[in-house]
Amino acid sequence: MSKIKKENTSKLQIIPLGGLEQIGMNITAFRYEDSIIVVDCGLSFPDDDMLGIDLVIPDITYLQENIDKVKGFVITHGHEDHIGALPYILKELNIPVYATRLTMGIIEHKLEEHNLLKGTRRKVVKFGQSINLGNFRVEFIRTNHSIVDAAALAIYSPAGIVVHTGDFKVDYTPVFGDPIDLQRFAEIGKKGVLALLCDSTNAERPGYTPSEKTVGRTFDLLFEEHSKSRIIIATFASNVDRVQQIINSAHKFGRKVVVEGRSMVSIIDIAQKLECIQIPENTLIDIDELKNYPENQTVIITTGSQGESMAALSRIANNQHRKITISSGDTVIFSSSPIPGNEKAVTNIINELQMKGADVVFQDVHVSGHACQEDIKLIYTLVKPKYSIPVHGEYKHLIAQRNIARDLGIDKENIFILHSGDVLELDDEGAKVAGKVPTGAILVDGLGVGDVGNVVLRDRQHLAEDGIVIVVFGIDKDNAQLISGPSIVSRGFVYVKESDALIENATDLCYDEIYEALEKGITDWGKLKSLVKDTLSEYIWKKTKRRPMILPIIMDANV
Amino acid sequence: MSKIKKENTSKLQIIPLGGLEQIGMNITAFRYEDSIIVVDCGLSFPDDDMLGIDLVIPDITYLQENIDKVKGFVITHGHEDHIGALPYILKELNIPVYATRLTMGIIEHKLEEHNLLKGTRRKVVKFGQSINLGNFRVEFIRTNHSIVDAAALAIYSPAGIVVHTGDFKVDYTPVFGDPIDLQRFAEIGKKGVLALLCDSTNAERPGYTPSEKTVGRTFDLLFEEHSKSRIIIATFASNVDRVQQIINSAHKFGRKVVVEGRSMVSIIDIAQKLECIQIPENTLIDIDELKNYPENQTVIITTGSQGESMAALSRIANNQHRKITISSGDTVIFSSSPIPGNEKAVTNIINELQMKGADVVFQDVHVSGHACQEDIKLIYTLVKPKYSIPVHGEYKHLIAQRNIARDLGIDKENIFILHSGDVLELDDEGAKVAGKVPTGAILVDGLGVGDVGNVVLRDRQHLAEDGIVIVVFGIDKDNAQLISGPSIVSRGFVYVKESDALIENATDLCYDEIYEALEKGITDWGKLKSLVKDTLSEYIWKKTKRRPMILPIIMDANV
Repeated sequence: MSKIKKENTSKLQIIPLGGLEQIGMNITAFRYEDSIIVVDCGLSFPDDDMLGIDLVIPDITYLQENIDKVKGFVITHGHEDHIGALPYILKELNIPVYATRLTMGIIEHKLEEHNLLKGTRRKVVKFGQSINLGNFRVEFIRTNHSIVDAAALAIYSPAGIVVHTGDFKVDYTPVFGDPIDLQRFAEIGKKGVLALLCDSTNAERPGYTPSEKTVGRTFDLLFEEHSKSRIIIATFASNVDRVQQIINSAHKFGRKVVVEGRSMVSIIDIAQKLECIQIPENTLIDIDELKNYPENQTVIITTGSQGESMAALSRIANNQHRKITISSGDTVIFSSSPIPGNEKAVTNIINELQMKGADVVFQDVHVSGHACQEDIKLIYTLVKPKYSIPVHGEYKHLIAQRNIARDLGIDKENIFILHSGDVLELDDEGAKVAGKVPTGAILVDGLGVGDVGNVVLRDRQHLAEDGIVIVVFGIDKDNAQLISGPSIVSRGFVYVKESDALIENATDLCYDEIYEALEKGITDWGKLKSLVKDTLSEYIWKKTKRRPMILPIIMDANV
Repeated sequence: MSKIKKENTSKLQIIPLGGLEQIGMNITAFRYEDSIIVVDCGLSFPDDDMLGIDLVIPDITYLQENIDKVKGFVITHGHEDHIGALPYILKELNIPVYATRLTMGIIEHKLEEHNLLKGTRRKVVKFGQSINLGNFRVEFIRTNHSIVDAAALAIYSPAGIVVHTGDFKVDYTPVFGDPIDLQRFAEIGKKGVLALLCDSTNAERPGYTPSEKTVGRTFDLLFEEHSKSRIIIATFASNVDRVQQIINSAHKFGRKVVVEGRSMVSIIDIAQKLECIQIPENTLIDIDELKNYPENQTVIITTGSQGESMAALSRIANNQHRKITISSGDTVIFSSSPIPGNEKAVTNIINELQMKGADVVFQDVHVSGHACQEDIKLIYTLVKPKYSIPVHGEYKHLIAQRNIARDLGIDKENIFILHSGDVLELDDEGAKVAGKVPTGAILVDGLGVGDVGNVVLRDRQHLAEDGIVIVVFGIDKDNAQLISGPSIVSRGFVYVKESDALIENATDLCYDEIYEALEKGITDWGKLKSLVKDTLSEYIWKKTKRRPMILPIIMDANV
C-alpha cells in the first residue's frame, strides 16, 4: 500500500544547464512537478579558440519552454561565473532574483548598466531565512568565500532536502562577518539530506584552506619590509576582504590608499554603501592626489592580477597608464595566483615590471577561496548526504571529489558526475539520469548575442592562421567575357611589397583559369569561383606552404 | 709601463643575439679581436599573438657582417631552443658546427631534412676535449640535463676564461653516463674564471633538483599499482633517459613497449644507433603488434605531454588516433610538468582522458632538468667567477639568479643582466656594456622566413578578432560612374543569413556614399575608398559594437 503511494509521488529533478563541461557558466535547474527554481546564472570567458568573443552565456531553451513553471533565480554569490549571464538571460526570461545583500548589490549594478533594474523583481535574503518558491523552500546558509556574503542553499522539496554549497571555504576567522554556519549544516544533515552538490575546485588539494586573515598578517610583514617603497598591490576586483586587509595594513603604517581599475572601484563602492568594508577616514584618496604624498606613504590597489591586457596593472606595466609609472623604487605585490590559462600573461607582466626596476612579490600573498580536501570531508560528514553530486570544477576536479566521497563511504552508485543537460531524477528510493534537455554555449560578441557560431569562428581561425587572399574580377554576363581584373588583394598573408612576383604569377594564373573556363562555355559562376579558388590555393601552397582563405568575387558588369 | 701594455690588450666581447627577451632562441657570440665563436643556435616557439607563425629564429645580421671572423658554432645540447635555428642559419652562414655525440646526431637528422648535411662541416667533440677556434679554445665539460650528452663550455680567451653552463642540473646518479664533471669545474675555477654564464631556469626554486633516477623508482611503483591496466606514458620526445627508465620498468614487469609520435621515434632511433639507450631484445614492438598482447602487458610511450594539439597524445585523447583508443581500463601517466603557457592545453587533455574513463596520473612523475638554487650555488662556489652573467630564463629568473650571486658575495656591479644585442666588454680590469648590435626575431611561416612581419601579424589579429567585410564596386573611370556593385562580402563577421538586414542597409549606405562622392567630382580612388571605409565602419560599430577589417576594392571597368 505504502509502496504504491510512494510510486505515485513525483521525483526531484536536478538539471545542470551549464558549468559542467567548462569552468564558469554555472546554472542549475531544480524541478519538482510544476515548480522550477534556478540556482545561479553565470557566464564563462571564451576559450582561446573562440576568437573575438567577449563572453559566453548558457542556452536557456529548457527554461523558456517551461517558463510558466520557473519560480525564480536563487543566487549563491556575486562572482561573474554565478551572476554574469543574468542581464542577458533576464532580457529573455523576466523572473525574480533572490540573493544575499552584497550579491544583490552587485547584481543591481549590472542590471542598471543594462537598463533592467526597474523591470526585474528582486528580493534580498538574509542568512537563515527561507523563501518559498512553488513546491520548493530555499534556505540561505552562511558560508565563506573570496567574496563577502556567499551562501550555500538548503533546497527543501517534497522528495527530500538537497544542499548546494555554492563556491565555499571554511574560514574560522573571516575578515568580515561570521564563519560558515557549520551548526546549520549539521542540523540539516541530522534531518536527512538526499543530495549534496559540493564545490570541487580544490578537491585535488590535500589539507585545509587557510583563513583569509593569514594574508592580512603577510601584508603587515610586507609593509614593514618595504617601508621605503611605494606599494602597488594587484588582486581580484571582487575580493572585498582582501581590499579591507590592505587598507588595514595601510592605515596601520600610515599610508594613503588609491583604488584603481573600474571593476574594483565599483565593487568597493557597493561594499561601502552596504557597510561590508570599513575604511578609516582620510585613508582613501583620489589618484590625482597621489602626487601630494611621498611615495612610501601610498598604496595603490589595482585590478589586473590575472594579466588581463586591458586592466590597470597591465597598462601600468606597459607604460600605458596615464597616471601611474613604474620606477625602481616601487614594490608590486601580486595578491592572487594565476587562474589556469593565465600563467603566461601574469609572468609577462612580472617580467615587464622587473625590467622597469620594480621589486615584484608574487608568491604566498594569497589564499584560495575554495575548500580543500579536509574541508570537503567536513561538509560531507556534517551533511551526510545519500547522493553526492560534485559540481564547480573541471572534470578532473569532479573526479577528485568523487574519490573523496568514496573514501567517506558513499556508494559508488550514489555518486553522480553529471553533464550539462542531464536530468537527474532522484528520491529516497533511487536516483538516475532519466533524460536530457538542450544546453549549449551562446557566444556574445559586442552587441551580438548568438550571431557568431561555429562557421564564423572557423572563418576567424582560418583568417588568423594565414590571412586572406581575395581575387576580384568583372564579367560581362551576356557575352561571357572577362572585362576587368582579376585583381588580387591580400591581408594577413605576406608582405606584399616583398612578394611582388608571387602575386603577379598568381594573378596570371587566375587570368588563364578564367579565360579558359569562359572559352569552354562555363557560365555557372559558382563553378568558375571554385576553379579559381582551387588553382590559386594549390599555387600558394606549393610556393609558401600556407593555406590562406581564398575568396573569389565576381562582379557582374551588366547592372 | 705595464698599465699601457694592458690598455693595448683587447677585451673579450660577449654578445647575446637572442634568448634574453624570450624563452628559447639561445644564441650568444663571443668575440676576441678577429675571432668570433657562437654558442648555440636555438629557435623559439611563437607567442600567442604571433598568429599562424610556426617558429621564430634569431636575426644574425651581426654574424653576417662579420662572417670572415666567425669560426664556428659550439653547441651545448640537442634541445630545439639550442639547435633549432641551425638549419635556417646555416643556409645563410656556412660555418662549422661542434657538438657532442648525441647532440650532433640530432643536428645531423635536422640537416638531412633540410638537405644541408653534405655542405656543413661538423665535428663531434668528446667531454674533456678542446677545440681551437681562432683566438679561442673551447673545452666541453660533461653536465647533466634532461637530454643525454649535455655540455658546459670553458671558453679560453686571451682576456680570460669564461664558463658557460648551458642548460644543466647536478645529477649524482644519472641514468646514462657519468655525473656532471664537478672536479673539472673546480679545476678551472682554481685557474681563475673571468665570467660565468649560468642557467637561470630554476633560480627561483629553493633546494636541489632530484636525480632523474628518482623517476625510475616512481615508474616501478606505478607499474606495480596499475598492473591490470594498459599504461600510456607521455613525456618529452628528447628525454632519452626517461624513455630508458620506462623501458626498464616495462622489462621488469614483462610489458612490451610501443614508442609513438614522430619526433620521439626519430630521437630514440638516433639514441639507439649511438648506444645512448639500452633496449632489451623483444621489448620494443610495432604499434600494429599491440593487438597481439593483452592490454596489461603493454606500455605506450608517447609525445604530447605539453598538450600540443597535433601530437600523438592529443589525437589519442580526442579519439583521432588511428590505432589507439582510450577506454576505461587505461592508465595514462604524464611524466612531465607543463611548460608555462601550456597549462590549459594539458588540463584539457587530462579532462578528455578522464571523461573516456582513463585513470590519469599527472603529479610527481617528473623531475626537472635544470639546477635549483643550491645547485647553482655549488657551481658558483666551484667556479668562483669574477663576473656573473645569468642566462637562460625569463627576466624574473635572471633576477632570481642575480640575487643568488649577490648572496654568494659577488659584487652588485659585477653581475650583468644583459639584453639581446648588448656588447659586454670585459677583461680582468673591468666589464661594461660597450655597445649594441642589431638583433631581432625572424618569423617562420611555412616556407617563408621573414616574409611575415608586424603589419601582416596585426592584420591577422584584426581578422581574428572580428573578421573582414569587403565592399567591391566597379567604376567607369572615364565617366566617373558607378557601373557595378557595391557588393558586400564578409567572412568571420556575422552569420550572414541571420544578418540580412544589416548587410542590406550597409550596402545601401555604401551606394549612397559612392554616388554622392562621384557627384561631387571625387576622382581620387584612395579618397573614395577611405570615405566608404569610414561610413561602413561607423555603421557597423553602431549596430554591432564590432570592428571588422573593412576592405573596399574598386574595379576599374574600362580595361
